Amino acid sequence: MQAIQKSNIEPGLTYLDKAPSPEITTPHDVIVKVKAAGICGTDVHIYAAKPSLMSRMGSRLPLTIGHEFCGEIVELSSGVEGLEIGQFVSAEMHWTCGQCHNCRTGNGNWCISHTVGGIDEPGAFADYVKLPASSIVPLPPDLPVEVAAYLDAIGNSVYTVRSADVVGKDVAVLGAGPLGILAVSLCRLMGAKKIYVTDVSDYVLRVAKDEGADEVFNVSDEKQHVEFLKMATSDPAKGGLDVVFEMSGAPSAYADAFKALSMGGEFVLLGLPSGEIPVSFSSDVVLKGITIKSIFGRRIFNTWTDMLALLQGEFLKSAKRIVTHHFALADFDRGFQTKLAGEGLKVVLYPGGLPKAS
Amino acid sequence: MQAIQKSNIEPGLTYLDKAPSPEITTPHDVIVKVKAAGICGTDVHIYAAKPSLMSRMGSRLPLTIGHEFCGEIVELSSGVEGLEIGQFVSAEMHWTCGQCHNCRTGNGNWCISHTVGGIDEPGAFADYVKLPASSIVPLPPDLPVEVAAYLDAIGNSVYTVRSADVVGKDVAVLGAGPLGILAVSLCRLMGAKKIYVTDVSDYVLRVAKDEGADEVFNVSDEKQHVEFLKMATSDPAKGGLDVVFEMSGAPSAYADAFKALSMGGEFVLLGLPSGEIPVSFSSDVVLKGITIKSIFGRRIFNTWTDMLALLQGEFLKSAKRIVTHHFALADFDRGFQTKLAGEGLKVVLYPGGLPKAS
Amino acid sequence: MQAIQKSNIEPGLTYLDKAPSPEITTPHDVIVKVKAAGICGTDVHIYAAKPSLMSRMGSRLPLTIGHEFCGEIVELSSGVEGLEIGQFVSAEMHWTCGQCHNCRTGNGNWCISHTVGGIDEPGAFADYVKLPASSIVPLPPDLPVEVAAYLDAIGNSVYTVRSADVVGKDVAVLGAGPLGILAVSLCRLMGAKKIYVTDVSDYVLRVAKDEGADEVFNVSDEKQHVEFLKMATSDPAKGGLDVVFEMSGAPSAYADAFKALSMGGEFVLLGLPSGEIPVSFSSDVVLKGITIKSIFGRRIFNTWTDMLALLQGEFLKSAKRIVTHHFALADFDRGFQTKLAGEGLKVVLYPGGLPKAS
Amino acid sequence: MQAIQKSNIEPGLTYLDKAPSPEITTPHDVIVKVKAAGICGTDVHIYAAKPSLMSRMGSRLPLTIGHEFCGEIVELSSGVEGLEIGQFVSAEMHWTCGQCHNCRTGNGNWCISHTVGGIDEPGAFADYVKLPASSIVPLPPDLPVEVAAYLDAIGNSVYTVRSADVVGKDVAVLGAGPLGILAVSLCRLMGAKKIYVTDVSDYVLRVAKDEGADEVFNVSDEKQHVEFLKMATSDPAKGGLDVVFEMSGAPSAYADAFKALSMGGEFVLLGLPSGEIPVSFSSDVVLKGITIKSIFGRRIFNTWTDMLALLQGEFLKSAKRIVTHHFALADFDRGFQTKLAGEGLKVVLYPGGLPKAS
Repeated sequence: MQAIQKSNIEPGLTYLDKAPSPEITTPHDVIVKVKAAGICGTDVHIYAAKPSLMSRMGSRLPLTIGHEFCGEIVELSSGVEGLEIGQFVSAEMHWTCGQCHNCRTGNGNWCISHTVGGIDEPGAFADYVKLPASSIVPLPPDLPVEVAAYLDAIGNSVYTVRSADVVGKDVAVLGAGPLGILAVSLCRLMGAKKIYVTDVSDYVLRVAKDEGADEVFNVSDEKQHVEFLKMATSDPAKGGLDVVFEMSGAPSAYADAFKALSMGGEFVLLGLPSGEIPVSFSSDVVLKGITIKSIFGRRIFNTWTDMLALLQGEFLKSAKRIVTHHFALADFDRGFQTKLAGEGLKVVLYPGGLPKAS
Repeated sequence: MQAIQKSNIEPGLTYLDKAPSPEITTPHDVIVKVKAAGICGTDVHIYAAKPSLMSRMGSRLPLTIGHEFCGEIVELSSGVEGLEIGQFVSAEMHWTCGQCHNCRTGNGNWCISHTVGGIDEPGAFADYVKLPASSIVPLPPDLPVEVAAYLDAIGNSVYTVRSADVVGKDVAVLGAGPLGILAVSLCRLMGAKKIYVTDVSDYVLRVAKDEGADEVFNVSDEKQHVEFLKMATSDPAKGGLDVVFEMSGAPSAYADAFKALSMGGEFVLLGLPSGEIPVSFSSDVVLKGITIKSIFGRRIFNTWTDMLALLQGEFLKSAKRIVTHHFALADFDRGFQTKLAGEGLKVVLYPGGLPKAS
Repeated sequence: MQAIQKSNIEPGLTYLDKAPSPEITTPHDVIVKVKAAGICGTDVHIYAAKPSLMSRMGSRLPLTIGHEFCGEIVELSSGVEGLEIGQFVSAEMHWTCGQCHNCRTGNGNWCISHTVGGIDEPGAFADYVKLPASSIVPLPPDLPVEVAAYLDAIGNSVYTVRSADVVGKDVAVLGAGPLGILAVSLCRLMGAKKIYVTDVSDYVLRVAKDEGADEVFNVSDEKQHVEFLKMATSDPAKGGLDVVFEMSGAPSAYADAFKALSMGGEFVLLGLPSGEIPVSFSSDVVLKGITIKSIFGRRIFNTWTDMLALLQGEFLKSAKRIVTHHFALADFDRGFQTKLAGEGLKVVLYPGGLPKAS
Repeated sequence: MQAIQKSNIEPGLTYLDKAPSPEITTPHDVIVKVKAAGICGTDVHIYAAKPSLMSRMGSRLPLTIGHEFCGEIVELSSGVEGLEIGQFVSAEMHWTCGQCHNCRTGNGNWCISHTVGGIDEPGAFADYVKLPASSIVPLPPDLPVEVAAYLDAIGNSVYTVRSADVVGKDVAVLGAGPLGILAVSLCRLMGAKKIYVTDVSDYVLRVAKDEGADEVFNVSDEKQHVEFLKMATSDPAKGGLDVVFEMSGAPSAYADAFKALSMGGEFVLLGLPSGEIPVSFSSDVVLKGITIKSIFGRRIFNTWTDMLALLQGEFLKSAKRIVTHHFALADFDRGFQTKLAGEGLKVVLYPGGLPKAS
């Protein structure tokens, strides 16, 4: 079968057209024929051979990557119940142990010995992928394939926004990548009061504005940066924002958040900054009563339930709009170059070739 | 009347024996005759002329300080309802505006324009103190005076522990000052599974052990420091602690917390570190799903209700034990010297002179 | 001034054109010139002289009724801060004591000695109404008057839906009066998975369907009733609904709810049934792990914040649509006859006469 | 082996001394040698052939009953990980499907297709019991056997009390059976403000008082009944109780609870009343803002974690004290007669004969 593999810890990825297909080995395996798969920021980091990922993956290479996808069940182990050949599915790619304290108390997303499909085990940039039955999420048959292709990422955004209660809140989304833009859309739909967005690209800020941002700021322009902080702290009854969603990983966003948040505000972290960020905990956190929450993966499987319900409505339009590029799996490199060039938003790969009309 | 004032932004405090008594000026004032008042860490910082406090207080000096106290109501403005002359009371010294968004939505402890009695307005190191009626908390007549003298601080500790749900949890208390030790006692009473405590003083660690700590570590000894991190991460079903209470303000405690916390752990901040602390947010916070909560003051008045109920039981013994030194108000300087020397735990001052037997 | 009063405990209401205007008597009063006021179900019960209300109101009659309204501030007592003559406002008509345990701990909506404007004290079916300053809610100047006229009721619905977390949930709304229909709209906007609605009027069910209900059932038709219970319990992964909102007060709705709810389901009560309802607590509640929540008034002032933010978006259309009838205050009786006849949804009265175009 | 079986739907139970031992049939089975097992109220109902239980169990008879127990692992299926022969364990006897929506979202205690060991499948009143590996809970080796024998029940009580937040609250426990008394103990340890207890037996009320109740009332005496309601509603700042734990199943307790609860109060249901109870929902629930929570089983496995931590401290004394009777398994009938006579509190059976000294 086709597969995109990380062969070694050098930059780049390898396309194989005769990789061996996965085979069932336990009573709980499911084989899925991949229809479409999204390129995640983590995949781009793997392509670019980011050291932290290479040290994690090194001993397992070569390995097929990819962890956002949808497809059709083609084979089921004997012990699998409740699933059927032909079903349209995706999967939670954080595979949990089921035995640790977090797993046993309903917090599988914090499993202390989980593995991630596409990083620790073979992933979905391939014709077929093998999955634990417990990870499978059946999808509505009419969910558009290009959206089903990156539910993993949509789930990150849903979990992020759902971790605060945005109804009636003044919020900022710092970083308007695909997940940031989806967060804007969700905040708007769910009833946020005011939504501020910052980024360094006018293109994505325009999209954010279309998705419901009240005010957008290109913070690479210091004038706009100052204006953001001024507006964010302008409500005399609050003196700052209720919630800041950090979705950029930029240290400067952290600094902005601490300035912009009101007393008792919530700071929600999804972005992954490199290195250390200095924090004035006394003045910026403790004496302001700030809570900092962090988002890892998706709530298993609460976030999936939430997401599929939200995709029944207006949110689907946002999720479709975010997919700006489509490539056949064999053309994966153009997809990665698109992302590396900072163009577009979400790139989706199709093992069976480009769909007729999306 | 007697009063301990900060006269100017230099180190030290001034004892006045003929300061003017406070007078009622609004329909909502209450005058309380102070029976006893605790010296808080903040008072020690005011004594030592810590720059951040001096820049806040400068324009208001001279000012009577002190914000932990109990006493007896001696005068009530015409508009005050539900209180009586002679009542034994304390007060929430974070005086809220009642108008801002946080005040209007039940979060007065995050009032954006609160003032603090004893820092922004005249405080309780005096024979008499004037208070807004809405800040008064009636006390059970049989609550020991030396405990009633520092409920403000006890409330900090109660709020800290109550901000996590410690039942069944593995916790660490970093910093065994008066508030840290009370936190140990509360964790033990409420049903924590395992309680680790770190400090740099063997004396306070012994007290912490008596109050129910399972294991204590003097982290100034690198061997004990290493042992703490090893034990904290030794449960194979967790790989780390559920909750860490940061009650020291030491940057090294932050570093320890991030190492010791399990996936999905909670980090609760009460201590006030100086300067900036560098944090590896990706590896230590986001990818571990950590939540960071911060404690400012007390929940108004939920924490007071909690605290007074807890002081009906075993917790009272801990709260009494913490009071290691008693001085007449006129001897305030010995009290501050005791704290500055790092001796004892809680120091209480008595405007009416030392009580016969405490 | 004009005023609609309950004169005695007999059915009916009285229109006065020369009632005395309210006057400021405390330092915290606000006088508002009423622009528009909604007729609430409670007002209809007062008109009809429902015994429980008459025994509550008897000793206070005659009394101007009306508790849903908007208007303009025309006079302020000396002690009022933060408000201005000419401001467009509404008010929370549950006036809280500020002294009881619930008030002191951020739960003013459960004040044990609140009074209700329009029931216990003079209300807003008049040219002018006197209000405590602390009850005032400033409104955006561009909020349509006919919606601002019944925010009190909209708030009931917002609080109801917000008391469950409907994202991803299968829900039923039992009773499609104005509040039920608004609940449907909110469930749809916020991301409910499936919304079932029952009522006994085809007209309101059609509106509910337009507002986003997936399936509507006229339960006066036993076939549809059976179909409702069948569909509500048809998901093999749930066996029932996640949330049922009881917004009818009909005993039969309670019976349906207990049949329709899944294990661990939530039953939210807003409707006010007459008399007693028998409940099989063992089989229908305890052994199913059901939670029952009840909605009294609005969260003060969280619900107002939520509501005003939600009315910035699509929800405004629903809130406008619900207002089916407009009358001059002097024509109040036609408004009440409309409600008593079960026609339309929300009726709004205008002291200054009908607006030109709504 | 020995086993106590329900043979048919008539009253009584049968002792077998040569019942077949359970055998491993799936890759996930565990066989435990039972050391001790508690008689639960449900077991007494099975003995007495309560119709609802007989209709549930009828088609499965004969069946070994018993679902509170502890023992030692003696055999493990090939697929079981993380457990060892010889381990001291108990088990969650609500066996969940792992597939339904509740199971997949961390709410296994509301599994829609769970089975209960000892009711739907062979239980623990026997020398050996077969269990799903996922249900096993390892115990500390030093946990007293007579307490380990009824953790299932202790967990009910822990879950009950933990479902409200009792710190600082005025609470009532209605029904002072074993679970009610443990609830009293927990409320006291965790910091409730005031604890009222009602029952119809002076004996259990005395125990409740010893365990920390502030006031106890034998409500079979109408004078005490009136006194209870008077005291429960005597706090002028509340007008009623914050939390009522219904642990009796008596309809009169429901009536008392609705009278005793304050605005915004919480009513927690554990008892299983027979038949229907009429409720005045308008006046007693909705207009008071009451929340009703119900307790089914235990949170899986959060309650187990909580309970084992609590049993490290003072709570262990309460749990030991509750065990008033010990019998050899072969003497089971004396145990059931004790319970049927309303004597004592918890009865524990020992398949290996009475322990030397408990």
